[in-house]
Amino acid sequence: MKIDSVDFFYLAMPEVTTEADGSQDALVVRVSAGGHVGWGECEAAPLPSIAAFACPMSHGACRPVSDSVLGETLDGPADIRRMSATVAYNSMDLLQAAHTWSGIEMAMWDLLGRARGVPAWKLLGYDAAYPKIPYASVLFGSTPQATLERALEMHGRGFRAAKFGWAPFGDSLAGDIAHLDAAREGLGPDGILLIDAGQIFGDDVEAAALRLDAMERNRVTFFEEPFHGSAYRAYGALSQRVKTVKTAGGEAAHNRYMAEHLIDFGGVGYIQIDCGRIGGLSPAKEVADYAVARGVTYINHTFTSNLALSASLQPFAGLKDHVICEYPTTLKQLAVDMTLDHIKPDADGQINIPDAPGFGIEINPEALRRYALDVEIKVGGRQIFASRRDV
Amino acid sequence: MKIDSVDFFYLAMPEVTTEADGSQDALVVRVSAGGHVGWGECEAAPLPSIAAFACPMSHGACRPVSDSVLGETLDGPADIRRMSATVAYNSMDLLQAAHTWSGIEMAMWDLLGRARGVPAWKLLGYDAAYPKIPYASVLFGSTPQATLERALEMHGRGFRAAKFGWAPFGDSLAGDIAHLDAAREGLGPDGILLIDAGQIFGDDVEAAALRLDAMERNRVTFFEEPFHGSAYRAYGALSQRVKTVKTAGGEAAHNRYMAEHLIDFGGVGYIQIDCGRIGGLSPAKEVADYAVARGVTYINHTFTSNLALSASLQPFAGLKDHVICEYPTTLKQLAVDMTLDHIKPDADGQINIPDAPGFGIEINPEALRRYALDVEIKVGGRQIFASRRDV
Repeated sequence: MKIDSVDFFYLAMPEVTTEADGSQDALVVRVSAGGHVGWGECEAAPLPSIAAFACPMSHGACRPVSDSVLGETLDGPADIRRMSATVAYNSMDLLQAAHTWSGIEMAMWDLLGRARGVPAWKLLGYDAAYPKIPYASVLFGSTPQATLERALEMHGRGFRAAKFGWAPFGDSLAGDIAHLDAAREGLGPDGILLIDAGQIFGDDVEAAALRLDAMERNRVTFFEEPFHGSAYRAYGALSQRVKTVKTAGGEAAHNRYMAEHLIDFGGVGYIQIDCGRIGGLSPAKEVADYAVARGVTYINHTFTSNLALSASLQPFAGLKDHVICEYPTTLKQLAVDMTLDHIKPDADGQINIPDAPGFGIEINPEALRRYALDVEIKVGGRQIFASRRDV
Repeated sequence: MKIDSVDFFYLAMPEVTTEADGSQDALVVRVSAGGHVGWGECEAAPLPSIAAFACPMSHGACRPVSDSVLGETLDGPADIRRMSATVAYNSMDLLQAAHTWSGIEMAMWDLLGRARGVPAWKLLGYDAAYPKIPYASVLFGSTPQATLERALEMHGRGFRAAKFGWAPFGDSLAGDIAHLDAAREGLGPDGILLIDAGQIFGDDVEAAALRLDAMERNRVTFFEEPFHGSAYRAYGALSQRVKTVKTAGGEAAHNRYMAEHLIDFGGVGYIQIDCGRIGGLSPAKEVADYAVARGVTYINHTFTSNLALSASLQPFAGLKDHVICEYPTTLKQLAVDMTLDHIKPDADGQINIPDAPGFGIEINPEALRRYALDVEIKVGGRQIFASRRDV
């Protein structure tokens, strides 16, 4: 098959706020080849990612992503890996390229899976997909009381695990301790409690370490992104000071080296990969293999649609012992409406990864039109990009 | 002062080729505040960088760079560092933000220097600027004979140091050895010979190591970017196998952590920082301090205009013992015409960093018009960016 086209659909809620909620917009990617289509999703920042696809070349090592994709052969996984290497080399000076490529690469696995009638996880080399325990991924409440109520709600909805994240965590030590206690109380003694600091401590190891006692006492399973995503030494220093709590990170990785180094030098116990940022499923699977070899637990990072969720579950679908997965529970309506299929916990509260061609998720064409933001880019008098609505 | 405006000028040669020459286009940035202006330059990929400035917000941690800049106070270096931290945090999910911010940050140092009548290196804390030995930065010839002629030319032009880079290096071991021998022969026995592999070996340590004998024999001073910019373990492994040759890298760093980790974990002997990519002068100066403390030599990375060259020299202007600097010698005409001032070797063949306000480089308004590519971006029916020609 030859890749005939790559189309981008920029969706957004009517109002986008400063809330740390990644489901307020979406960049959906459709790849067409040989009469088949596949769907992917780039994680956030739609306009720069579109620009990285369509921009004029700057020089040989700063080419648009389109140069390495359009017209290329796509007959199997090896072709996807070949294009990954080409993008990495030919777009090495184009920083946004990794995010743009992530959605395209994702769509290619979906397309191949649909064309062959097999799930993407089979194409990645797994024989079986094991169910995961979803953790409800929610933001902290604005007060400890609000956090308690949110934890009670998640417990009431049957979640055995929940992650609380972002502001106001980090504002004050006393406040953070109160939020940690509230989250544990609401989740009950048996719940799996996870904390996401949203990089709030920069590279200040001491500030992050001040929270460890309250985390250990509340039996927090992992402490996610205390620091800037690249600050491996800070992660490494904190990882040496934890007792039962593990450090976690990886969503900021935009290539497999960054994730592997967070394991090597950051000492994280959980590596969290977003297939919409790291360059798609291939590097994510490599990181999963790397994690297994080093006794580190792999988890998806997902804060957008169920398309991105299914895609991000594929790279560790066959890892029976890596049992928890991130599961966004407070998606904005656009992310809900975007897909006709939805992944929901079963009667045992577990997530079953679709056993269907590709990602097993059908896109809702009507939603792609309803939430669409038209984009037009002209450079030097020439239209280099115009979005389409003919889904 | 309040930041009144940030303007982008996208310049390009009439024809842009796949040659690994970063001077074929430019994204020039003008910052205006309190009646003063300053000029900066983002390294390559103009359109995605413009998009990262002007795009709609995706969520609280994925905001356009403009949100952290326009209307902000700029009264001193502390304000620049405050905005750096804001951009890093509020745009953490917008990958291209670091490149966009680099040119803006650069322009702020130029503006502050002009407003106070002092060079940027003084604002960075240096008392004096020491001259540097420029190395001619050129591409390998297509044949060893062509490389020999290029080396002879650089030697004839009085350069005491030269760096040869990129294709065809890496094509074959025998060819690479012939190119290395040719470069040494042309440069003469006393010339400082530097090699830039342009990431061609990916993370294949053995392939890179096969070139070490010929490098040691030809007394190569450093072996730059044998690997992907993020592959620290590969750098670390090669760094343990060199004798007199040092490894070098860092241009791909888009925050200070990446550069510091290339020192910590990659074991490089030379750290090469491009102020147009790492986030401007502040993080570059932090890396310079870090390098000094660890016995590593700091060098600028510059393959664009003399504006970018002057900016990239500022962070190590006061480091007397860090004596070589990258000096692009085969700039495309747009990069030559872009500035009215040019930095040229003195009678001793040395580069003197301008002792003049800001970067000491005047922009050529006529060139900004002549090479301009008009850019217009519309999202959701609203024009979010339109380039200006009123320089």
